[in-house]
Amino acid sequence: MHSQSRPLGEFDLIERFFKTGADAMHTGESAHITLGIGDDCALLKPPAGEEIAVTSDMLVEGRHFFAAANPELLGRKALAVNLSDLAAMGAKPLGFTLAIALPHVDTAWLEAFSKGLFAVAKQFSCPLIGGDTTAGPLTISITALGSIPSKKPIRRSGAKVGDDIWVSGTVGDARLTLAALRHEINLTDEDLQSIESRMHNPTPRVELGIQLRNIASSALDISDGLLGDLQHILKQSHVDAQIVLDQLPKSVTLQKQSMAIQNQFAASGGDDYEICFTAATQERNAIHGISKVLNLPLSIIGQIIPMKNEQATIHLLDEEKKPINTNEAATLLKSFDHFTK
Amino acid sequence: MHSQSRPLGEFDLIERFFKTGADAMHTGESAHITLGIGDDCALLKPPAGEEIAVTSDMLVEGRHFFAAANPELLGRKALAVNLSDLAAMGAKPLGFTLAIALPHVDTAWLEAFSKGLFAVAKQFSCPLIGGDTTAGPLTISITALGSIPSKKPIRRSGAKVGDDIWVSGTVGDARLTLAALRHEINLTDEDLQSIESRMHNPTPRVELGIQLRNIASSALDISDGLLGDLQHILKQSHVDAQIVLDQLPKSVTLQKQSMAIQNQFAASGGDDYEICFTAATQERNAIHGISKVLNLPLSIIGQIIPMKNEQATIHLLDEEKKPINTNEAATLLKSFDHFTK
Repeated sequence: MHSQSRPLGEFDLIERFFKTGADAMHTGESAHITLGIGDDCALLKPPAGEEIAVTSDMLVEGRHFFAAANPELLGRKALAVNLSDLAAMGAKPLGFTLAIALPHVDTAWLEAFSKGLFAVAKQFSCPLIGGDTTAGPLTISITALGSIPSKKPIRRSGAKVGDDIWVSGTVGDARLTLAALRHEINLTDEDLQSIESRMHNPTPRVELGIQLRNIASSALDISDGLLGDLQHILKQSHVDAQIVLDQLPKSVTLQKQSMAIQNQFAASGGDDYEICFTAATQERNAIHGISKVLNLPLSIIGQIIPMKNEQATIHLLDEEKKPINTNEAATLLKSFDHFTK
Repeated sequence: MHSQSRPLGEFDLIERFFKTGADAMHTGESAHITLGIGDDCALLKPPAGEEIAVTSDMLVEGRHFFAAANPELLGRKALAVNLSDLAAMGAKPLGFTLAIALPHVDTAWLEAFSKGLFAVAKQFSCPLIGGDTTAGPLTISITALGSIPSKKPIRRSGAKVGDDIWVSGTVGDARLTLAALRHEINLTDEDLQSIESRMHNPTPRVELGIQLRNIASSALDISDGLLGDLQHILKQSHVDAQIVLDQLPKSVTLQKQSMAIQNQFAASGGDDYEICFTAATQERNAIHGISKVLNLPLSIIGQIIPMKNEQATIHLLDEEKKPINTNEAATLLKSFDHFTK
């Protein structure tokens, strides 16, 4: 896969790239990480009165990223997508483990990958605390651990009838970037540059999650497409949603596309890593305040309504708040599935 | 890789095999697992005064197991090797996450794999609490979480001059099984049957680890070969060791092989998942007591001695306690390396 390589033992490898990077963060051991890399296990102690949140994601070459993917950005993204899960729960990052299979040892690739990985780790005070390295098809599996005050986690199951449905940032740009890279859609260089970081370098909304602890009734992060992911909230909360398609927040670049593309990519594009959450209407002012403080757009895209039949359902409305026909809706609601696409 | 397959979506897949299995354990939520599978994160609360131990391992097809490996045994082993890391630290299992890449959805394979996985999970009261499923070359990444009283973890760095060096069970049988399966060594069917579970179905020494909390000065689990792994203890404790090669505990089956094979496989065979630990000599009676209670042989294989030069060194002695020549020793000390073998 990569050009420059030289023989290097497994232990050397771990030592050189990952332990060194972890040490450089000066966060190997801290108040909450009582033991970092180098033993059979790492040890964590959550702050008093808090619980540990745990999430695992796996990224596979050719499936989640191209073989030629920029390794620095890949390192950033591998950790960011896990921090996004912590954010969706309102958890503060504590540390992470990395299990990685590498086809061979490529020092240039490893240097760039660990540079990106540790940049995000440092940004979010989330040190590498352990892991595993092996030979194999390039596969990156990260488990992130965070802490959250007991009884404060933002669950998927808490949405209430009458709640607003919110989404952070904009959605659809990662999908538009993918379409451009696949030459399915032509974008000017300028337009591509304006959005491509949304695919390659997503920003986990960690601070938003923490701010929403006492405000959101439910939340999740959008990885497989906004509406598909929203269905998890509906299912677990036993409610329906009505979504005004026109209100999905889109970048200026996405807004240059046809309405069909705009709707498709914003509704079900995937890889957005924004937070979709619900909150009572009386929280609107508080949420607008958070938006201002974080300098992050937060948009209402619809409402939680009572369940109309046995199955949690999203009712899509057009700009005049009229129902959108079933066939179009079905396409928009299709979530990304790693096995069927 | 496998024959029977049918299209099945990712969410269905997770739901069907893993959530169902987790639910069947009746341990989805408990005193210490406050939230199991199905949200952005799982939530854990360690027992009062205890810390969380975390370890991650990755198993790759063709590297850690054969493509034709029995999926039930593979499910058992995937979790067992992680529990072995918890055991080496003295931690009690709390739960685990599973990230798995599958080339396609094969229901028969998944049924068998999850049967094995959940059998070990149940045996050690360690429920599945989250994870990720994706398409890709068969790769299994498990992160196990345990709990341990603060200040009680058994570190690699605690070995003291004068300590005995102990090893649990026997070593070398997994390597002998591999040699037989590769037709490098001929074993009778009876002999192979007597040892092959040591490779396919290792027993994590969880109870031993817990019993050793107040007794062992250092410990680790043997995955890459006894002497190679022991060097991690020596390096982190800044000590040397003398090991009497003849005292390595070996099965009756391994003892039928030549002395050269016996020594090689016992000293550096790998995949043993026994615990190597050190303890002060005054703990011998207590340790023999633990051995009796657990019905598990525990053998003294040598002593911790002062460091003779800058590098932590294992000094190998023959049955007359005379030093073994350097070339033979070098071969025995070679640890398994996933990238150089």
